[in-house]
Amino acid sequence: MLSQAEFLQALRGVLGEAGLLCEGDLSSFEQDWRRRYEGRALAIARPADTAQVAAVVKLCAAYGVGLVPQGGNTGLVGGSTPDATGEQLLLSLCRMKQVRAIDAANLTMTVDAGCVLQAVQDAAAEQGLLFPLSLASEGSCTIGGNLASNAGGTQVLRYGNARDLCLGLEMVTADGEIWNGLSGLRKDNTGYDLRHLFVGSEGTLGVITAATLKLYPSPKAQTTALAACDSLDAAVNLLVLAQSRAGASLSGFEVMNAVSLGLVKKHFPQLQQALALSPWTVLLELSDTESEAHASAMFESLLEAALEAGVISDAAVAASQAQSQAMWHLRESIPLAQAQEGLNVKHDIALPVSAIPSFVTGTDTTLKAVFAGVRLVNFGHLGDGNLHYNVQAPEGVPAKEFLSQHETAINQIVYDAVAAHGGSFSAEHGIGQLKRAELAARKDPVALHMMRAIKNALDPKGLMNPGRML
Amino acid sequence: MLSQAEFLQALRGVLGEAGLLCEGDLSSFEQDWRRRYEGRALAIARPADTAQVAAVVKLCAAYGVGLVPQGGNTGLVGGSTPDATGEQLLLSLCRMKQVRAIDAANLTMTVDAGCVLQAVQDAAAEQGLLFPLSLASEGSCTIGGNLASNAGGTQVLRYGNARDLCLGLEMVTADGEIWNGLSGLRKDNTGYDLRHLFVGSEGTLGVITAATLKLYPSPKAQTTALAACDSLDAAVNLLVLAQSRAGASLSGFEVMNAVSLGLVKKHFPQLQQALALSPWTVLLELSDTESEAHASAMFESLLEAALEAGVISDAAVAASQAQSQAMWHLRESIPLAQAQEGLNVKHDIALPVSAIPSFVTGTDTTLKAVFAGVRLVNFGHLGDGNLHYNVQAPEGVPAKEFLSQHETAINQIVYDAVAAHGGSFSAEHGIGQLKRAELAARKDPVALHMMRAIKNALDPKGLMNPGRML
Repeated sequence: MLSQAEFLQALRGVLGEAGLLCEGDLSSFEQDWRRRYEGRALAIARPADTAQVAAVVKLCAAYGVGLVPQGGNTGLVGGSTPDATGEQLLLSLCRMKQVRAIDAANLTMTVDAGCVLQAVQDAAAEQGLLFPLSLASEGSCTIGGNLASNAGGTQVLRYGNARDLCLGLEMVTADGEIWNGLSGLRKDNTGYDLRHLFVGSEGTLGVITAATLKLYPSPKAQTTALAACDSLDAAVNLLVLAQSRAGASLSGFEVMNAVSLGLVKKHFPQLQQALALSPWTVLLELSDTESEAHASAMFESLLEAALEAGVISDAAVAASQAQSQAMWHLRESIPLAQAQEGLNVKHDIALPVSAIPSFVTGTDTTLKAVFAGVRLVNFGHLGDGNLHYNVQAPEGVPAKEFLSQHETAINQIVYDAVAAHGGSFSAEHGIGQLKRAELAARKDPVALHMMRAIKNALDPKGLMNPGRML
Repeated sequence: MLSQAEFLQALRGVLGEAGLLCEGDLSSFEQDWRRRYEGRALAIARPADTAQVAAVVKLCAAYGVGLVPQGGNTGLVGGSTPDATGEQLLLSLCRMKQVRAIDAANLTMTVDAGCVLQAVQDAAAEQGLLFPLSLASEGSCTIGGNLASNAGGTQVLRYGNARDLCLGLEMVTADGEIWNGLSGLRKDNTGYDLRHLFVGSEGTLGVITAATLKLYPSPKAQTTALAACDSLDAAVNLLVLAQSRAGASLSGFEVMNAVSLGLVKKHFPQLQQALALSPWTVLLELSDTESEAHASAMFESLLEAALEAGVISDAAVAASQAQSQAMWHLRESIPLAQAQEGLNVKHDIALPVSAIPSFVTGTDTTLKAVFAGVRLVNFGHLGDGNLHYNVQAPEGVPAKEFLSQHETAINQIVYDAVAAHGGSFSAEHGIGQLKRAELAARKDPVALHMMRAIKNALDPKGLMNPGRML
């Protein structure tokens, strides 16, 4: 107790009054936004700069206090809320939100970890440049959290995951040292790639305090189309055709099954659906460096070829920016429609694109046989093999009860099938608290052994985001 | 001695007669191709498959024998030849050269580590697909070596380094376990990214035995142009213009100074130079997913705009595949012309693109002031900030003598300037033996400390490629 009071006193010395919250309603820090994880923090540290982060981590190391870094607190796996002990220090990066530098000729930007993703996008756009990472929570998630969790989103097909958009990092290590790896270099073969080790490590190896990000010239036009496919096989064929014709211009390729769009129709009847409901609807996006006209012509010829080859049965190209946005809005309304419909079991899985049709057919069949009337809400980023394969209770069956009875069995069936098809049980959401047992059970034991060795080497006291991932 | 004989006996049991070389002329394994590193191996192990690699590593661990993995032995930093003690086992992966699988719909290929890069390219091309990694030694380097050293080459601007083209790895760890991480997934957030840690680790953490690689649809057209610039500033402006107009179609952007092309003219007078010698010549390449005609039109409009803006003073677009090849041949002849001219001090450096003009102007001036008449052969991959900034003795001065007197001082000047401009002293060639002292002296101490901790955690006995990198 004495030492706890001492610790808080020392923290206050480092952070000042504004930088340390110990009292009042701290629930916005202690609870995740979906209210699935609720903990209690010893205190909330809100450092103003990297030196303060380092000083806080040094104090944690000295007093043996576990540290939970937090950005926008928008994660889906409980990676950034404290546990229930009241002994973990929550480190909020949200006061560190400066854009440190933009280098237009080098196509890079250096930002503090606490920058909100949308602010990063906006700062790039002001220079006529694009920071392509884009996800539903972009208005509140931070770039530090995006990197710590290697966020994905809708533009991965063209630009890669968060890790692919990061050229350099500034980190505070578990013993409170500052590593300045803020390189704007596209080639640097001077030793192990620490950047890639820390990206996606969910705060378990240290605290990301800043990053140098890749930018791209803004495309001259961005346009969208919907296409109707009779099967997932056809959707995969459409992807192959689109990639071979449009190359890197193809920046989005989302798939939605009839159940997904049916739920949108039910709960958001005001949303226009440009195509009649078909087994599978694909949303394609082209980002064109030339012009609107060039993008439209490419879409016309691609979709005509797909129609002729019998790959699609119908298509609609957005005629305006507003129509493009409406198509994306349709896609983005699925999770909300699902929430309206009731609780469901979510799976954020990745598969080789070629394995997706067989995975879905097989797993649909198994689940429907075991749980009569179960509804499969299946949508996601087909272009990079990432499905949100969600299982909703049968119509009329109370969702909460269904879940509490069957969630474990459903997960088992789905994750076993994912493994059998060479897939991953966490494509873009990470491990956090939610999938820790899954990781221990399903990850290759040799890989797990190496991961634990690395964790022990870089955080021997086990104070960095304890209880997450490993 | 007894234990050495026992060790060899045990190795023979694992590998068979064909898999173990102990006698005869082993110089092709013991010496690098530039003859800068010559060692003596205890023996050459030539495993036929991953299980044999694992068994060999287990024996090395049991007997405390250091292991030097080798692919095509084409490296430039002495990373894959044994030391002089005669106590290190050389592990050649060259018998492991199967293409294990190609998944066209998933755009992936899984290959043994010993596959020659060109064989990988060819296997992709047979399916109408592209494996874009491309470098001068592609006819003999292996994909395992490319990944261990994170090779770069001429297509990095569009497709990234070797690491960016790798989705999964199979590895043998330092204690002889096999990690099967041969994923063909574009998203997988289940723990630390071990793949990125091993890529570029130069065999110091384990042995890469196979990899799953990214493929791309083959472009419909690939075409090339040369442009003359009065300054490096202008060349950077041309890059910005080309990226904003051509986006991902821009697959090559090489720069060559007048000294470089002058040496080519001198030693290979038969090679046609389409443009008169100017201070800087840029080679641009477009890879177009539509057609020849589309690529040509894009070049015409880009170069016209550049001429009008005063960014370039002249340009020539290749009118045929043969002319494109001739332009690339010109670029690729620079190192040969340099070799004809005599020994020189090579620097494989990376800088933020925006810092290149100031770096070159400043460093040229300093070197010329200190070493009167020195010749700066400067060329490289400007598009990704990677210069081969080589220093040749003054005309008429014996190169060998000049080097032995001044190499250290020259390196000091160049690398100090690189550091001052936020650059890297090894862009694509790696560390190996050559730049080990440089790494120890110049790498951020916090990063070095973490690298050593990781090395100790994953190779506690220090048997994996000892004496390299760290």
